[in-house]
Amino acid sequence: MSEQRVRAEKLDATDELAGLRARFVLDDAVYLDGNSLGALPAAVPGRVDDVVRRQWGELRIRSWTESGWWTAPERIGDRIAPLVGAAAGQIVVGDSTSVNVFKALVGAVRLAGEGRDEILVDATTFPTDGYIAESAARMTGRTLRPVAPSQVPGALGDRTAAVLLNHVDYRTGRLHDLPSLTAAVRAAGAVSVWDLCHSAGALPVGLDEHGVDLAVGCTYKYLNGGPGSPAYLYVRRDLQERFDSPLPGWNSHAEPFGMRRDYEPAPGAVRGRVGTPDILSMLALEAALEVWDGVSVDAVRAKSLALTDFFLECVAAYVPAGRVECLTPDAHAERGSQVALRCADAGRVMARLIERGVVGDFRHPDVLRFGFTPLYVGFGGVERAARVLAEVISSD
Amino acid sequence: MSEQRVRAEKLDATDELAGLRARFVLDDAVYLDGNSLGALPAAVPGRVDDVVRRQWGELRIRSWTESGWWTAPERIGDRIAPLVGAAAGQIVVGDSTSVNVFKALVGAVRLAGEGRDEILVDATTFPTDGYIAESAARMTGRTLRPVAPSQVPGALGDRTAAVLLNHVDYRTGRLHDLPSLTAAVRAAGAVSVWDLCHSAGALPVGLDEHGVDLAVGCTYKYLNGGPGSPAYLYVRRDLQERFDSPLPGWNSHAEPFGMRRDYEPAPGAVRGRVGTPDILSMLALEAALEVWDGVSVDAVRAKSLALTDFFLECVAAYVPAGRVECLTPDAHAERGSQVALRCADAGRVMARLIERGVVGDFRHPDVLRFGFTPLYVGFGGVERAARVLAEVISSD
Repeated sequence: MSEQRVRAEKLDATDELAGLRARFVLDDAVYLDGNSLGALPAAVPGRVDDVVRRQWGELRIRSWTESGWWTAPERIGDRIAPLVGAAAGQIVVGDSTSVNVFKALVGAVRLAGEGRDEILVDATTFPTDGYIAESAARMTGRTLRPVAPSQVPGALGDRTAAVLLNHVDYRTGRLHDLPSLTAAVRAAGAVSVWDLCHSAGALPVGLDEHGVDLAVGCTYKYLNGGPGSPAYLYVRRDLQERFDSPLPGWNSHAEPFGMRRDYEPAPGAVRGRVGTPDILSMLALEAALEVWDGVSVDAVRAKSLALTDFFLECVAAYVPAGRVECLTPDAHAERGSQVALRCADAGRVMARLIERGVVGDFRHPDVLRFGFTPLYVGFGGVERAARVLAEVISSD
Repeated sequence: MSEQRVRAEKLDATDELAGLRARFVLDDAVYLDGNSLGALPAAVPGRVDDVVRRQWGELRIRSWTESGWWTAPERIGDRIAPLVGAAAGQIVVGDSTSVNVFKALVGAVRLAGEGRDEILVDATTFPTDGYIAESAARMTGRTLRPVAPSQVPGALGDRTAAVLLNHVDYRTGRLHDLPSLTAAVRAAGAVSVWDLCHSAGALPVGLDEHGVDLAVGCTYKYLNGGPGSPAYLYVRRDLQERFDSPLPGWNSHAEPFGMRRDYEPAPGAVRGRVGTPDILSMLALEAALEVWDGVSVDAVRAKSLALTDFFLECVAAYVPAGRVECLTPDAHAERGSQVALRCADAGRVMARLIERGVVGDFRHPDVLRFGFTPLYVGFGGVERAARVLAEVISSD
C-alpha cells in the first residue's frame, strides 16, 4: 500500500466530519463536482414529496400561509445567514444569482449616490457577473471597469460607486482577501458587492464582521440546494432602509396583499424579494440546509484545507512531473475549496476520469476542476482521485 | 331537486372535457381558486421524485446534458407555445413574472427606439406590473403613464414607446380586446407587451395571429405548474434579433460555456434566459403540461364560458337580490375565466365558504373571486358553490 493510502486511512479515521457523509445520497464515485452541483441530501426527497403531494396537492392555496410558503424566502435566508457570518434579517432567498447581481449592483450604485460614476468589476469573474455588471452600468449611466481583484485598491477613488468581486475565483479556486478588499472599498466611500457562489458553505465568510455591504450567492454548490435552486441576496442591516431595488416586484411591497397602485418598499431583507417564490426549489433547499445542523463552518474549513492539501500531495506523488500545472494558490489564505489543474487535452482527460468514477469538471480551454465538499468528501476518495488522474494521464 | 341541479347534471353528462378531471389530484372541495394556484396534476409527484432521486441524486451533474436540464427553458417554452397561439422557438421559461415584465418592457422600449419617451401601463393592472413598469421607465429615462385599457387607443401617439397590458384583469375577470389593442399599438409605432397570467390556459390568446410583440405569463394558474413555478417570456420571432435584454445573464449567451468576457447574445428565444434555471420547479411544470395532451384550447374556452354562465345563473337564482354585485362583464367577449362578486364583509364570507368546501379567494377590500378551470371544474361543483354562497350570505 502506498504511503498516501496509509495516510488517507489515518486521516479518515480521525476526521470528525466523516459521519456527515451519511446525510447525503452517494455512491462509489468520488464526487468532486460539488462546486458545480452539490450532492443530494438524504432529507430532500421525502420533503419534496410532502411539498408536492400534501402541501400543494391537498392544502393547495392554503399552503401559502399554513405551510409557510409565503415567508420561505426570508426564513431560508435566516438559515443561510450563520453559514456566511450574517445575523438574521439580512438575507432573502429567491431568483437566480444573475438576477441578484443585478439587484445588488444597481442597489449599490444608488447607495453610492450621484457623484460616483464608475463601477469596478473583477476582471477574472465568472462571466455572468461581468455581463450583468455591464447592463447595470449601462442602465445607471455609469462606466464599467474590469480590474483584477489584487489591483482593486489602486483603482479605487472618488469616482468609484461600487465594486463587484468574487470571494473565490470559479476557475482557479483562488480565495480573495475579503476583509481587506472590503475595507479598502469602504475607505474609498464606495459600496462593496461580493459574489459568494464558490465560498459559502466551504469556508467562513464573515459578512457582518468584515462590514460587507451587499452580497449574493447561489445555493446549489456547497449548500447542496439542488439544480438551479434559488440564489440569495444579503443587504447589510443599516443599508436596508436606503436599498432601492431595480426589481421592485409585489413581493417586496410593505403591504403585498393591499394591491396598492403606489409602491412602498417593505422594511428589512424582504425588500430584496421580487415575484412569487418558486416553492418547490425553495423548500428543497430548506430541507438541504438541515445537513448543517450542528456543523461548524470553521471545522468545515479546516477539513477543506486538509483535503486540498492532501490532494496536492497525492498529485505530486503520483502524477509524472510536468504533466499538470496547479492554478490554485498554495497558501491557505489564498485557497478556496477547489483545486484547478491545467493539463493538456483536459476535456478528454476529464471524460476518462468520469468514466472511472472520479467526477470533476472541465473548464474551457484547459482546466480540470476538482471541488472538495468537506461534508461528504473523504481522504480515501481524494487519494483515489489523484491515483486515477495519474493513471489516465500516464496511459497516454 | 332545484332546476339548477338538474341542469348541472345534464351539463356534466354532456361535458366532453369531464374526463380530464382524472388527470388531477382533487378531493370533494369545489376548487375555484385555480386562477391563483392550479390543482396538482397527477403526473407531477412521480416526475418530481424521479428528478430528485435519479436525475439529481444519481446522475448529478451529468443531468445537465443527459436529463435535458440545460435545454428545459426553451423546450418547455415550446410546450406552452400552442396554448397561447405561438409557433415554436419564441417562448422561454424561467424567472418570475415580475422579472419577465422587466425584461419585456425594457426590451420593448429599446425596440421602440430613442425618439419615444412614454410607456403606457394598464391603470388597473395587478400591482407588480405597475411597480416594475415604473422601474423600467426610470431606468430607461421614460415617463410612465397609467391608462385604463379601453383608453389606450386615445392615449397612443408618437411619444409612445411601449404599452403593457393585461389580457384578463386579475380582479374583475374582464377580458381585454387583445387583437384590436395590439393593432392600435402597432399602428402607433409602439411595442406591445401583454401579461397573460389570467388568460393562458383558459382561453385562446393568438399571440402570432394578432401580431403581439412581447408577452409574459405565469404558469401556476391555469397551467397548473405548481406554487411559484417559473414564468415565461414570448418575443416574436422577427423581433428576436433586436431584442436587447436588461438581464443578459450567461444562460442567454451565444456560447454559455465559452466563459467569454464579452457578451454575445444567443439567437432565438434563448436570448430571454438569464441565470441557471430552477430545475425542480421547471420540470414539475413540464410534467404538469402533459394534462394538455389532446386538449383543444377552443374547447376549454367553450366550457369556461359555459361554467361562468352557469355560475352567474345559479347565483341569480339562489342569492337574495342585492347581496352581491357582479364585477365581471356579462358579454362573453369581455369575460375571462373567473367571476368576481362584490359583497359586504367579503373576507368573512370567503372564510365561511372555504370552511364549507368551496374554495375561491378574497381580494381586498370587498371582492370574492371564483376561478373556473375547465380542465377540472364541473357543473355540479358550480351549482354547489353558488348554493353554498347563498346559504352563507343568507345566514347572516
